[in-house]
Formats: sequence, C-alpha cells, structure tokens
Amino acid sequence: MDNSRIKKILKSLQSGDITVGTAFDFLKYLPYEDIGFAKVDHHRTMRQGIPEVIFAKNKEPKDIIAIADSMIKRSGRLLVTRATESVYKRFGPLCRCYKKKSKFYKRSGAITVGEPEKKSGMVAVLCAGTSDIPIAEEAQVTASFLGSKTEMISDIGVAGLHRVLDAKKVFSRARVLIIAAGMEGALPSVIGGMTDNPIIAVPTSVGYGTSLKGLTALFSMLNSCVPGIAVMNIDNGFGAGVLAHKINTL
Amino acid sequence: MDNSRIKKILKSLQSGDITVGTAFDFLKYLPYEDIGFAKVDHHRTMRQGIPEVIFAKNKEPKDIIAIADSMIKRSGRLLVTRATESVYKRFGPLCRCYKKKSKFYKRSGAITVGEPEKKSGMVAVLCAGTSDIPIAEEAQVTASFLGSKTEMISDIGVAGLHRVLDAKKVFSRARVLIIAAGMEGALPSVIGGMTDNPIIAVPTSVGYGTSLKGLTALFSMLNSCVPGIAVMNIDNGFGAGVLAHKINTL
Amino acid sequence: MDNSRIKKILKSLQSGDITVGTAFDFLKYLPYEDIGFAKVDHHRTMRQGIPEVIFAKNKEPKDIIAIADSMIKRSGRLLVTRATESVYKRFGPLCRCYKKKSKFYKRSGAITVGEPEKKSGMVAVLCAGTSDIPIAEEAQVTASFLGSKTEMISDIGVAGLHRVLDAKKVFSRARVLIIAAGMEGALPSVIGGMTDNPIIAVPTSVGYGTSLKGLTALFSMLNSCVPGIAVMNIDNGFGAGVLAHKINTL
Amino acid sequence: MDNSRIKKILKSLQSGDITVGTAFDFLKYLPYEDIGFAKVDHHRTMRQGIPEVIFAKNKEPKDIIAIADSMIKRSGRLLVTRATESVYKRFGPLCRCYKKKSKFYKRSGAITVGEPEKKSGMVAVLCAGTSDIPIAEEAQVTASFLGSKTEMISDIGVAGLHRVLDAKKVFSRARVLIIAAGMEGALPSVIGGMTDNPIIAVPTSVGYGTSLKGLTALFSMLNSCVPGIAVMNIDNGFGAGVLAHKINTL
Amino acid sequence: MDNSRIKKILKSLQSGDITVGTAFDFLKYLPYEDIGFAKVDHHRTMRQGIPEVIFAKNKEPKDIIAIADSMIKRSGRLLVTRATESVYKRFGPLCRCYKKKSKFYKRSGAITVGEPEKKSGMVAVLCAGTSDIPIAEEAQVTASFLGSKTEMISDIGVAGLHRVLDAKKVFSRARVLIIAAGMEGALPSVIGGMTDNPIIAVPTSVGYGTSLKGLTALFSMLNSCVPGIAVMNIDNGFGAGVLAHKINTL
Amino acid sequence: MDNSRIKKILKSLQSGDITVGTAFDFLKYLPYEDIGFAKVDHHRTMRQGIPEVIFAKNKEPKDIIAIADSMIKRSGRLLVTRATESVYKRFGPLCRCYKKKSKFYKRSGAITVGEPEKKSGMVAVLCAGTSDIPIAEEAQVTASFLGSKTEMISDIGVAGLHRVLDAKKVFSRARVLIIAAGMEGALPSVIGGMTDNPIIAVPTSVGYGTSLKGLTALFSMLNSCVPGIAVMNIDNGFGAGVLAHKINTL
Amino acid sequence: MDNSRIKKILKSLQSGDITVGTAFDFLKYLPYEDIGFAKVDHHRTMRQGIPEVIFAKNKEPKDIIAIADSMIKRSGRLLVTRATESVYKRFGPLCRCYKKKSKFYKRSGAITVGEPEKKSGMVAVLCAGTSDIPIAEEAQVTASFLGSKTEMISDIGVAGLHRVLDAKKVFSRARVLIIAAGMEGALPSVIGGMTDNPIIAVPTSVGYGTSLKGLTALFSMLNSCVPGIAVMNIDNGFGAGVLAHKINTL
Amino acid sequence: MDNSRIKKILKSLQSGDITVGTAFDFLKYLPYEDIGFAKVDHHRTMRQGIPEVIFAKNKEPKDIIAIADSMIKRSGRLLVTRATESVYKRFGPLCRCYKKKSKFYKRSGAITVGEPEKKSGMVAVLCAGTSDIPIAEEAQVTASFLGSKTEMISDIGVAGLHRVLDAKKVFSRARVLIIAAGMEGALPSVIGGMTDNPIIAVPTSVGYGTSLKGLTALFSMLNSCVPGIAVMNIDNGFGAGVLAHKINTL
Repeated sequence: MDNSRIKKILKSLQSGDITVGTAFDFLKYLPYEDIGFAKVDHHRTMRQGIPEVIFAKNKEPKDIIAIADSMIKRSGRLLVTRATESVYKRFGPLCRCYKKKSKFYKRSGAITVGEPEKKSGMVAVLCAGTSDIPIAEEAQVTASFLGSKTEMISDIGVAGLHRVLDAKKVFSRARVLIIAAGMEGALPSVIGGMTDNPIIAVPTSVGYGTSLKGLTALFSMLNSCVPGIAVMNIDNGFGAGVLAHKINTL
Repeated sequence: MDNSRIKKILKSLQSGDITVGTAFDFLKYLPYEDIGFAKVDHHRTMRQGIPEVIFAKNKEPKDIIAIADSMIKRSGRLLVTRATESVYKRFGPLCRCYKKKSKFYKRSGAITVGEPEKKSGMVAVLCAGTSDIPIAEEAQVTASFLGSKTEMISDIGVAGLHRVLDAKKVFSRARVLIIAAGMEGALPSVIGGMTDNPIIAVPTSVGYGTSLKGLTALFSMLNSCVPGIAVMNIDNGFGAGVLAHKINTL
Repeated sequence: MDNSRIKKILKSLQSGDITVGTAFDFLKYLPYEDIGFAKVDHHRTMRQGIPEVIFAKNKEPKDIIAIADSMIKRSGRLLVTRATESVYKRFGPLCRCYKKKSKFYKRSGAITVGEPEKKSGMVAVLCAGTSDIPIAEEAQVTASFLGSKTEMISDIGVAGLHRVLDAKKVFSRARVLIIAAGMEGALPSVIGGMTDNPIIAVPTSVGYGTSLKGLTALFSMLNSCVPGIAVMNIDNGFGAGVLAHKINTL
Repeated sequence: MDNSRIKKILKSLQSGDITVGTAFDFLKYLPYEDIGFAKVDHHRTMRQGIPEVIFAKNKEPKDIIAIADSMIKRSGRLLVTRATESVYKRFGPLCRCYKKKSKFYKRSGAITVGEPEKKSGMVAVLCAGTSDIPIAEEAQVTASFLGSKTEMISDIGVAGLHRVLDAKKVFSRARVLIIAAGMEGALPSVIGGMTDNPIIAVPTSVGYGTSLKGLTALFSMLNSCVPGIAVMNIDNGFGAGVLAHKINTL
Repeated sequence: MDNSRIKKILKSLQSGDITVGTAFDFLKYLPYEDIGFAKVDHHRTMRQGIPEVIFAKNKEPKDIIAIADSMIKRSGRLLVTRATESVYKRFGPLCRCYKKKSKFYKRSGAITVGEPEKKSGMVAVLCAGTSDIPIAEEAQVTASFLGSKTEMISDIGVAGLHRVLDAKKVFSRARVLIIAAGMEGALPSVIGGMTDNPIIAVPTSVGYGTSLKGLTALFSMLNSCVPGIAVMNIDNGFGAGVLAHKINTL
Repeated sequence: MDNSRIKKILKSLQSGDITVGTAFDFLKYLPYEDIGFAKVDHHRTMRQGIPEVIFAKNKEPKDIIAIADSMIKRSGRLLVTRATESVYKRFGPLCRCYKKKSKFYKRSGAITVGEPEKKSGMVAVLCAGTSDIPIAEEAQVTASFLGSKTEMISDIGVAGLHRVLDAKKVFSRARVLIIAAGMEGALPSVIGGMTDNPIIAVPTSVGYGTSLKGLTALFSMLNSCVPGIAVMNIDNGFGAGVLAHKINTL
Repeated sequence: MDNSRIKKILKSLQSGDITVGTAFDFLKYLPYEDIGFAKVDHHRTMRQGIPEVIFAKNKEPKDIIAIADSMIKRSGRLLVTRATESVYKRFGPLCRCYKKKSKFYKRSGAITVGEPEKKSGMVAVLCAGTSDIPIAEEAQVTASFLGSKTEMISDIGVAGLHRVLDAKKVFSRARVLIIAAGMEGALPSVIGGMTDNPIIAVPTSVGYGTSLKGLTALFSMLNSCVPGIAVMNIDNGFGAGVLAHKINTL
Repeated sequence: MDNSRIKKILKSLQSGDITVGTAFDFLKYLPYEDIGFAKVDHHRTMRQGIPEVIFAKNKEPKDIIAIADSMIKRSGRLLVTRATESVYKRFGPLCRCYKKKSKFYKRSGAITVGEPEKKSGMVAVLCAGTSDIPIAEEAQVTASFLGSKTEMISDIGVAGLHRVLDAKKVFSRARVLIIAAGMEGALPSVIGGMTDNPIIAVPTSVGYGTSLKGLTALFSMLNSCVPGIAVMNIDNGFGAGVLAHKINTL
C-alpha cells in the first residue's frame, strides 16, 4: 500500500538520506493539488489506506488522462475502473512517458499502471454465473492492485452443489471471500455455511424482470440467514476489493 | 376430492338408486345459494377441483359460522384458514349438530371439518426456519384435506448443507415439493439443484428491515437460477397446498 | 428427456453392448467440463430433469457457439433462448458439422438443435394479446423441446368472453395450461374459473405507464382469486415451459 | 342535488315569494362561514355539484358534531363517511333538534341526515368479494344520497363466470356501473367486455402480501385492456359515488 | 358510433331492403375473423361501444397494414394510435384502394381513416404545459373520431391562475372535461373547484427526477381533494377520449 | 436567538461586568456536556443558529426531563416537539424549580419553556385541510419560539379558489410562507403563482391509499411547476419553522 | 429582477416621460400573448419574481427560437436551461437581430441572453464531486442571471474533512448556500453543522445501483439531522438558483 | 470462540485424558439434535465460527427456554437477542440449574449466559444519535460475547464535527469500527475519511417520513463516497457484531 511510500520518505529524512527540502517538496502538494476541475487528493492513502482511483465512467477521456498524469507523476501507480478500450489506448503514450507498465482488463474495464504491491494473504473471489465475471474481475483486480494475493472461481451457482463443494478446496485457503452474484443472490448464504472467514457479498445487476437491476440480489444478501455477511452496493466490485484487502492486511 | 361426491349422485341416478327428484334437489342449489351477504358456491368443486374454503381473517365469527353451516350441510366437509382459537370454539356445537369431527391446527389457524379424502401420492413440505412453520402447516393441512399424503421437514436453512442433504432422503420420496422460506428465500434454489420434481415456492413474511415483509423472498424465488419453480403469493400456504394436490393427482 | 440417454448408456453397459471403458469415457466428463470461462454442466439432466440450455442474451456470439459445440457433442441436442437472427446464422456450420437439424423461432428468438423427444401429454399455451406472443412462443418451444405436445391459442383478452369460451374447447384437452398476459394480467383468473387443471401464469412486460414493466401483471397473478396458480418471473416463458413439462410428465 | 335548493331561493325571490332580505340572509353566509378550526363551505354545491360532506376518520367527535350542526342548519341534509357507531350515537340529539331523520350504514360507516333527493336514472354497484362490501356500500350510499337510484350486486368474482353472467341482467339496466374489487382487481375488465356504459373502478385494500394494500388492484385497473375505465383512489367509494351520480344526471 | 352501422344492416333487413343472405354475409364474420396472428374483433362495437382501434407502438408496419385492411373493409373507418410518420405513409395506397380519406396527427402519432361520425355534445381537453400536448391531442382525436365535438386549451398551469380563469369561458360550455397534466398534476384539483361537470384526468410522463415518469402526477390526481375525478393510466389519452365520449353521449 | 445570549456573556466580560472566571464557567461546558446517555450540545446555537430542541417521540419521559433540566439550567429556554400531555405534566415541577413559564400546544404536541425572543418580520403558515393543522402548528410554534412573528390560515384547499384569494390579504404581508398540505399537495403551486416571496412546503401524511403516507404530497411539491419551492421531509413542521425563521431574520 | 423593469414603465408614466398610450402598449400584451402552441407569460415577473425561462429539453429547436424571440423582444433578457450546443448556435442570428449578447455554459447547457442584473449579496454554490458540477453550474448561472453574486467550490466530499474546512473560508462569506450532491447526499448535513445560514440542497442523479437515480440522495437530504434544510427535486439546479436569489434579495 | 471447546475435546482424546466413548458421546449429537420443532445446531461453531444464538422475537417464551436448555447443556454459553424483560425472568431458574451467570441488556434486549471468552483486539462501536443506542448495544454485546474487547461512543452526529473529532481519540485505538446510524446515515462516510480500518455500517430504522424505516440510511451507506464500507441489514446489530469479531480475530 502507498502508506509505505509516504513512510519511506519520512524515514529517508530521518536517516539523513534526503533533506528537509526534498521531503517538503514531496509533501507540499498536500493536502491536495488543484488541477482546475477536480482536486486530486494525494493524501488519501494516508487517511483511508487506499491510493486515489479514477472512476472512468461518464468522464471525458482527456480529463481522465489529465488526472492520471498528475497521479502517476506523484505516486507512480494508478487504478482506473470502468474504462473503455478506447480510453485505454490513450494510456500508451502517458505510460511510456513515465516508463510505467499498464494493463487492461477487458471484461471489467479496469486499467492498472505500475508494479503491483508485494502480495500477502489470499482473497478468493467467487462468482455465481458467467455474467457476474465483470464485477468479480473488478474486485479481483482491485484487491490485487492494493497488494493482496487473489484467486477467482467462476460459475458456481447454488443449484449445482457439487460445484460448490469442489470450490471449497480453493476458498478454504483464503483469509477473506468475495462473492458476486445476481438474480436471487443466494450463493453467499450457501458458502457462508461452509466457512467461518469473513464474506463480502456483491450483488450484481444480472437478471431481468423482478431482479430489479440487482435490488433483489442486494436485499437477498442483506437478509442472509448466515450472520455477519458484509454487503456492498450493486455492481460495486471495486468496494469489495478495497474491503477485502483492508481485512486481509489488518 | 368433492367432484367424486357429485359424480356419485349422478351415478346413483343412472343406476336407479335415487330418483330424478332427489338428484334435482341436490343440484338445484347450483350454481350458488344466496345467503344474503355472500353467495356460497357449491359448484366450485366441479369447475376448479377444490371445494369452497373459508378465509376467516377479518370475517365476523357469526358470518363464518353461517357460511360453514351452509357448506357442511351440502358437502359434509370444510376447510377454514386463518382462524383464531375463539372462532374454533364456535365449531363445537355446529359439528355436533352434523355429527362431524373437526380439528384445529394452532400454528397456522386452520380448521378441518369432516373425514379426509382417501390419500394418494406424496407431497413434501419443507421450511427453512421455525418461523416459517405456520405457513408450511397451512400448505400441509390444505394438501392433506384435499386428499394428498403429506410429510413436513422443518428448520433446514441453506447455511446448513448437511441438514439439507439429510432432508433429501425424505423429499426424494415425494412427487411434489412445497418449500416455504422467508428472509433471502434461497432454499428452493438449493433444493431445486437436487431433484427434478416440481417445486412450489412460498415466500413468507418472516424477517425484518429489507425483508420487506416477504417481497425479498418473493423476488428471490422468482429469480431462482433453477428454472421452472412455481411461485405463490407471500404467506400463501393455502394456494401452495391446492397446486401441490392438483399436480399430485393429475 | 435426456435422463433416458444416460440410462441407455448404463443399460448398454449392463447388457454387455459397450465396455466399461466406453461408459467411463462418457461419464468421466461429469460432473462438469471446464471450458475456461464457463463450466458446462452435462449432469444437469440427471439432477434437475432438464438438459443445459443457453440463455443467449448479452453473451458474445463466439462464446455461445463454444458452449453449444461442447453440448451438442455430448448430448446431440440443444435449446438456445433469446438469440438474434445473426446468432442463429452461426449455427449453420456447427450443425452441419454434427449433422443436426436446427430451427429458429423468430418472435421469441429461440433456437432448437436436434430431434424433438417423443411427445406425450398436452400443454396448452394461451396468451392475452398479440404482443404477448414472443413469451408464449418461448414457453411452447421449451415444453415441446423437452417432449410435451403443445398447442397455442393467442389473442383472447378477458374483455372478449366469447373468445375465451371458444378457447375452452382447445384448452380442456390439455393436462397443463400456460397463460401469458401483460397489462392487468387477469386472464389466469378467468381461465382458472373454467378448469381444474394446473395453471402456470407468466406475466409479460407488455404495457406502459403503470404496467411497471410487468410488475402489475405479476402482482395481479400472485393475488388471483383462483387458488393455486403457479406464477413465473416476468417474461419467463422458458421457466413456464420447463414447469409445464415436469408436471405433464410426472 | 342541492343546486336546486339554491335555485329555489332565487326563484322564490324572482316570483316575489320572499324578499331580497331573506334571500340575502341565506346567501350572505357565502362564500364560507368560519367556525374557528374549519371553514364550512356552503357554496360548494354551486361550484362542484355536491354538498359538503364530512370525512369523519381521525376527527374528534365533538368537532364532527359542530360542523354537522352548521351544515344541517343551512341545508337540512348531510352525508358523513367513515364514522363509528359511537359517533353516530351523538347524532340523535342533533337530529331531533332539527327534526331530521338520520340513518347509519354499519359496514361502511356512512351516516345520512335528511330526506333523499328525488331519484332518477340508475347506478349499479358491483363488488367482487364480500370483503369489498364496505367500499361498495359507501359508493352506493353516496350516489343515493345525491339523488341516483342504485342497486348492489355482491360477491361476483371473475373466477365464477356464471355469476357474472347472472349479474348482467341487473347491470344492463343501469346507466353507470361502479365496480369495487381488491386482490387482482380483474372484475372491471371482464364486465367492461359486456357493456358499453361508463364504468367506474374502485380498487380496495382487500388482500395480503403483494396486494400491497390495494396498489395491485389499482394498477391492474389502470392497465385494463378495456379502454376508458375511470379509476378512483384505493377504497374511495365516496368518490366513485360522486362521479357516478354526476354522469348519471348529466 | 358503429353500433348504428350494425343496426342499419338489421333495419335494412327488416324493411326488406337487403336479403337475409346479405345480412348474414355481413354478420358471419362475427364474432371475429382470424387473420393468423391476431383475431380482429368486428363485434367489439356492439359490446363495448367503440370500434376496434390499432395501438401501433411496437407492432411491425406490415402487421398494422394487414389489420387495418381487414378493419377498413368491414367498417370503413379506423383509428390508429402511437404511429410514426413512416407508418402513416403506408396508409396512402391502402386508403386509395378503399377510397377513404386519412389524416395524420403529428404530435400524438394518431391516424384516422374515414369520415367522422356526426358530432354532438362537447368535450373540452385542457393541458397544463406544452409538453402535455401529445397526450391531450390523442384524447381529442379519439373523442372526435368517436363522434364528440371537441375543443382544446393548452398551457394553463396552476401557477397562472389568470390563464385558468380565462379558460373557464371555454370549458364551461363543455359537458365533459379531459385534463392532461404531468409534474405535480394539480390542474384537475383547481379546475375541479370551478365546475360540476365530470372530469377525466390523464397523468402524463412529463417531468424528471421525482416525477417518476408520471407516477407522481397519477398519485396526485388519485388523491385530489375534489371528489369524483376519473383517473386514467399514465399517458393514456386514448382511454380518456373513449370515456369522455361515452359520458358525453350517454 | 440564543446567539445573543452567548454574545451578551462575552460583552459582559469585555465591559468588565463579569470576570473571566464567570465567563469561563459558562463556556467550560462547551463543546458539550455528557449526561451519560446523550451529549447535550449547548454550543449548537453558535454553530447553527438554533438552540437545542428535544424531539420527545419514543424517548422515555424521565430521559426527556433529564435533558430538559440540563438545557433550562444553561439557557433558560427550551422547545420540545411531539410530546404527549402526560409528558407535559412532568414539566410543572421542573419549571417551578427554575421559575420559568411553560406552554403546551395540544394539537402538535409542542412544549415551550421560557419567554419568547423579541419578535420581528412575519412568517405566514398556511394549511390545506383541518387535518394538516398539527403540522402547521408545529411549524408556527417553532418559528415563533425562535423569534419570528407568525400568523396561521387554515383550511384553504385548492378546490376553493375564493378562499385562496381571501387568504392572499394575509400572506401578502408575510416575508416567508410555510404551506402544509397532504393528499395531492397542490397548494404550494397555486400560492406560488400569487407571490414572489420564498415558500417552504411541508408535505403531511394526511390521506389514505395512494397518498402513500405523504410520499405523494412530497413528490408533488418537489415537482411543482413554480420554481424554487423549498421542500421539507414529510410532517416536518419543525424544520419548516427553523428555515422560515432563518430566512426571515437573515 | 424584471419587476424593476415594469416599475420603471409605471414611474415613467407617473413622471410624464411616457404617455398612457405607450404604457398601455407595453402592458396590453398582458396577461399573456398567444403564439399558437404556447402562451408566453410576460407577466410572470410581476407575480413570481422571476422572468420567464425556457426549459429546452425535449422541445423542438424552432419552437425554442420562436418563444425566445417573443421574450427577448419584450424584456431584452432570457435564460435557457438544458440546451444543446446545436440549439445555442441558432441564438447567434437571433441575438444579432436584437443586438444582445449571449453566452453558453457547456457543462449545464444553460444559455443567457442580455446583460446581467446589478449584483448584490452572495450565494455560494458547493458541490460534492466533479460529476455534480453540471447541476451546480445550472444553479450558479440561474442565481447570477437573476442578480445575485455567486461563487462555486467543487469537489469537497464529506470523506475529506480538510477540504470541507478549507471551503469554510469561502462559504462563510455567503448569505445563502446551495449544495449539490449525489450518491449518499451527506454534504448538506456536514456543512449544516458549520453555518447558520440557509442551506438549499440539490440531490443529483450521480451514482449507480442503489443511488436510484438520485432518490437516495434526495431522501438522505430530507432526513438530514440538521433541521431546516431546503430540498429541491433531483437535478433541479434551476430551482435552487431561483430560491437562493429570492432569499438573498428578500 | 467455541471452536476451542471442540478442539479441547479432541486434544483430550489425543492425550488419553478421555476415552473414545466420551468423545463420541460429545460428538454424537452432531450434526444436530432434533428437539421436535427446531433442530439445534451444535456444529455451527465449527462451520461458521459462531455458536448458535437465539433470536427471541416472535418466539414463544417456553420454546426459547427449551432451545436454551439444550444449548447451555452442550456448550455452557448462550446469546439471546431481542428478548423482553419477562423472557429474561425465566432464565433465572434455568441458569441456577446449570450454575451459570446471566445478564440482561435492557436497551437492546440481549441476554448473555456464561462467562465471556478471553478478550483480544478492540472493536469500537459508534452511534449517531441516542435513538440508535439499542442497535449499537446489540452489536457491542455480540462482539463482546464472541471474545472481542469493545468500546462504545454514542451521540456523535455529523452536524457536530467537534464531537466526531473528539471521538477519533477512541476509535483510532480500534482494529474494526461498527457505526450505527439512522435518518440520513451519513456518519460512516465522515468517519471513513478519518481512518483506514475496516468499517461496518448498520442502518437503523430511526427517523420518520422518508426515512422509510431505515431504507434511506441503508441506501445512503451503500452509496458512501468512501470505498469498501461493509453494510448490514437494517437494525442488524447482531450481524455487525459477528462480522466485527471475525475480522478482529482473523
């Protein structure tokens, strides 16, 4: 996590490797830097344990690149969610400019820039149907970007208990489970009866008619007969990844 | 079922055991008999395959007894749902008058008058939690009253898969399954993956907050990943019993 | 139904027609075969009584073809729902490859591959208006694909009782009725007063304003004054076909 | 209707039977008389065609009597809706004081004071189940109080078409039909296919679960496949009676 | 209204102007003629007082023309609602073929074919804002097509009472008022205080945010403090026109 | 407003009338004083311009008295909302103890303790029906307690335009208008067309059926065709009084 | 505000600078001028304190220009909201014709024509995220057009309290605050604890899933623990600007 | 946690301290013991990490005691939620029988039986208003019963930022935070900006009108601008305590 980056600066100062001026230069952009239309918050890592992330949906491509530029310059790393392939193409020149690697996750629309954190712990990401994969992938990429080891198991609906039992071998190695499911959203209840690790449930908007764009899965998860399931907003794979990582690295 | 009663009259006429006058006397009350505030429909058995039933909730005790009197006189049998114990006490004198036996099912508030039909087939009634028992009992009493063999298995939530697996021994003997569940309503999906018999799901209003008085369980069941589950209105154990019996005796 | 196909393999083994090796080869793909992004469940027929079906909506055409390939290879039959005409065109080469016939049902977007099961019983499919036909057709194709005889009667709204009475001649020959209706969803109640066979009601999203995309028809059907009507999710013709066939062949 | 009362005053003035002073005395209370907590609007008859009516629910008995006193003094007639029996008992002394007759309708809680208008035309009030009678009665009493002939037919659900056909003999004599129904609210659609007279539909809050306290019946009626049905608020028998009378006497 | 057309046939027979064979030829298509995908109901005029009308939305142009052909042949008249300009263009050849005049109402998408009925009475159509005009026009065209005189007054919001007062001169000449309004839907309440003629309120889906696509206007109208307002489904100008004409010509 | 009380302390210190110790004693309870179960915030007056107020509903009488004691001791004044008469009776001994006068407003359940602020400006409180008076009274008492002159006009529904026009004489003298209305909530739109002063609309839960416990009035007010109406939560007379006073004394 | 324009005419008449004929010519267009499809209300300034404004969304460009022409001719000023850039291009010729300046605000789609009023007071416009800027800009342009000084502070979410504290320097100079926020809509509560000036909260439709297109932010604001916050309809920046200006200039 | 109890049995067996027979006796009740109406699941501790808990609401007192008896006999400990004082009184004899101590938490209705687990870590429980205390207490008692150290801070609404800042001293010592809030539910967002520890948000049903019995707070929390907040069902303090403990002791 980026907190380590800030602490490194402070320790370098303490050990005499850098001067107060250099440390000050780094920190002076704090609390935030105004780039006209949006205040980029470089401090968020210190306060909330996660670096700034760009939610690309409905943002103009050139605005995304401007914010990204400011962030990569400062921290060398970046996560973009809900981007299109055409937005990703604009990251080529930007990353070359900073000599950073980037990667695009097509199904979820996530982009990562920079090297991943050193991994620790393990977060298992389960999803009920193939249509839930985009949200599950967003959760996985997020937790991985923040520094958790992750593994995904897809297509294990509650109507196929033998698949669920097979999956147990994998998820029993994890410290935290993320479960994405649409329609009736029953998977967290079934898995919840098979583990005592924390479970984070993400309702997806998959389904039609009375799936009510994910509300049915959401309410189903909130009413799970397994106590203590953490529920996220509909399709919020990103939030699930953040929480899973926080718990994983507590 | 009471259709057999009507056919018996007609056959008795055919075989010369009764006169046209007697048959006419029986049938003349058809299509319905007006008792002032409600038209008692003795013909319903012929048209819909179920005898008239009294939904006691919000009805005046004396009106219930008046309707019951008319029905017992005609068909000798009766099912009352959602009655209180004090309503049941008024059935004592009435039943003695017609020399019929009656029984009160306390948890569901059902009352039966008269001998059960000869039983056939088997309907299994499953319920997720102990709070769902009143609705499950209503379903069981109804199917049994109409002439189906029934068996109930209670307290098998999806979070305890070993209980579900134990229950399989029972429900695999049934031709039709009724499953009552509140909260997230996931049990039909899990059971649905273990059988290919018809399943009738009854959402119950058990739960609080976002259980939305049963709407969450209802929508969850309608969105089950198991195709072809028959869904009933919230807390409608009676309807489930009727449908189960119809399928069982098709 | 495909259960017969599995039993045939086992019987062939018993009778010495095939070797243990051949039977094993067939069964070893069980419980499921992993084709990367989706686990194709060839066992579902044994557990739930229906072969795997592809819900084409929102799936990539090439993914549909890949899943279809795996299924046809194994079971020789397939049902696809909610496909477009352009998806259907890709089935030409695939079917030629396996020497299977395919058919496209334009109004519902259903595709069938392979010969139908030997038909038995009869399922009547009724629909209230011409706009409900796509959903009714999906129900009919599904029940027919699974092995039920079917007949459809369209355009019989409750406001035209003479049409309803005409339809009676047809539906009284059926063992099970499927009724699709949008708007106020009243047809199941009216038909329900004219038959004692099981009725499966499918609310459709036909209507505007307060039809609330089918919620009004759904709630109307759940509240029918005829007890024991099985209700499906909005526009879920497929589920209705599955249930109708299960009941028809019990 | 009371407009005739106002016109009579003016004609009496014209014909010399009363003086300007007397007419003025009558009219000077217009537009309204302030009795402290509520402005009693004696003019409403002229503007909206119906005399002031008291909606008793949640009002203090002594406030009801005060308003009633002011109204009876002025117009000699009064309609109270949603009153309890204990409120009705207070009307005894009041009516004796003005030498007026009063009547209490127990099921709907309506009270009428004074002689009915001379009747004309005919309004038929139909209701689906016995639980809908309170609302139907409110509609009937209202239309009758305003001066329409009325007739009620109760307990004719859509599942019993023979009852509906019997009812036709009665409602075909009417100029306007009021139909009260709860649950799925389908009766107006069925009746609407059998007549071309105006239909006023009143959804009732009868039902449970997804009847949503009458919303399902309301939406069902708004979406009727019969065009041109006039829909009222849930349980608004009074409004239905007012509209029926207005149309009847146009 | 077309009932007169049917009566004319019967009178011609009575008076000897046509033979039984001719009358029979006309009537034999009754109760309905099956044209494959939709049953065209030529009898509806007799039962419900309105000729068949085509709701064009979501129907294929060639299906619309086929139904239209069948109807014009039989009754010489037709009303189409919610058509696009491109659908209207196809009516040119069809109408020339039957030597009928047609007209397209651009804002509402209504098409009329054939001469209007002889007009009688008067229906005033009011609308709150210019955005409500399409719905108001649909109501006006419908009532006019059925045989009522009509007049429209637009853009009279409740916040401009002087406009409302000006409008009174027009609407006080009408026997029935149709009022279309979106947003807060308050116009029927204000007009309702100024007239004692029947009012038909049509909520429109005009507005944004919490206008909830017309639900707010709908609920507002159902809760009007003016008793006896007839409410239609959202955007249902057609239904309003039908009801207004029925009342107007009672 | 109580800010003046705090400033008086500070000015007394400045002018030498009190010592630093005395001022400190007064202020030391700031930012808040912990009385075990609730932190009484004496500073709120400085930050938000209104003194602490007790919302009595669902609070234990003895807890109300404990909080009241702490407040009266500090500021000498107090407003309690939604209290019952039995709670008010407990204020007798408490007020005698501090030699303060108290008053109970029966319809709204408000209690005031201490002398009112010196009045300025004028806030008019209008309400549509007599049932809206409790909420209107709460708004009036609140604004008055904070220091605004107030006047109430009740029972002016939109269907009676002459009453609205009469009311104009009163509300045109006000700087700010509060309008409470249930049912269709149309009054703010009509009044809004007659004044250019700020309007605060309070939807009330008065009505039944589709009034949806005030949601219909709320949405109606939010969608008013008059721009710039300030809307409060349902039945939130207190909030309306606070805002009206803030605007009145800006 | 334009009231001053009307008063200037009347004063000119009083002082003899213009004749009665000239004044009459100006006023005779009152109460409104009928331009066929919409009644342009030049009087609204007098009655409601704001000049007519055009809501461009869903209006035909040529209708917008026709209304705009009539308004600019009369009052020389105009505000258009929710316009597209292509609509703005049509204002070039129109404005040159009347020698007026126009400006387009791209993010909100607002167009202003004519010189601003002389500014007074100050309205601060705060918004939580960059996605809320379009609505905030609409509020700002509106208040400014009407004659208020304005200042905007964007991107100050509640999770970054240091930004909120920084913003205090700006908003503490304002007389009225407008706060636009989507998602959980918490900013008004936090700001409300830091000021005692009137706050106008505008929920925006920013968010996804359970943001319910702004309903969550709306309900959150209505339930704020800070009493007396004025809430607007979802995305109603225009209404917020109007109310802010009314309060600012009271 | 009770897993340790089971392990102790197994270790005793391994070390020879007990015989296989004794171990078997203990384990044989697994997977569950049938006490007629409810299956008591002693195994749950092994599978889900929490011992069985009794949700007392709507259960008959004598059923509660029967279940409690079975549990205390087996595990020596018990947590009951939502009990009334009269239920608690029945625990006296039961606990004396097993020589266990019990405690009743009046505000939340929780009962604990047996010694607490050895405490570790720290869970801070924050609540916004005094009305949220019952839910917060339930969360605290649960986490404490399971073995976490806990601390509660109440009455820190977002409108009083100084209180929030004071609270920081306490909650910054915790590993996990539980935050209970009703009304607008904004506290988790504000606290979330001040810590990077996991946050569990519990919406409460506190509020009126558009608080919609907790739905507004729920949706607000799901839409928090702070990513990764775990949300519970409305009023589900128990679930929050379970999750907090799981995370705390991971």
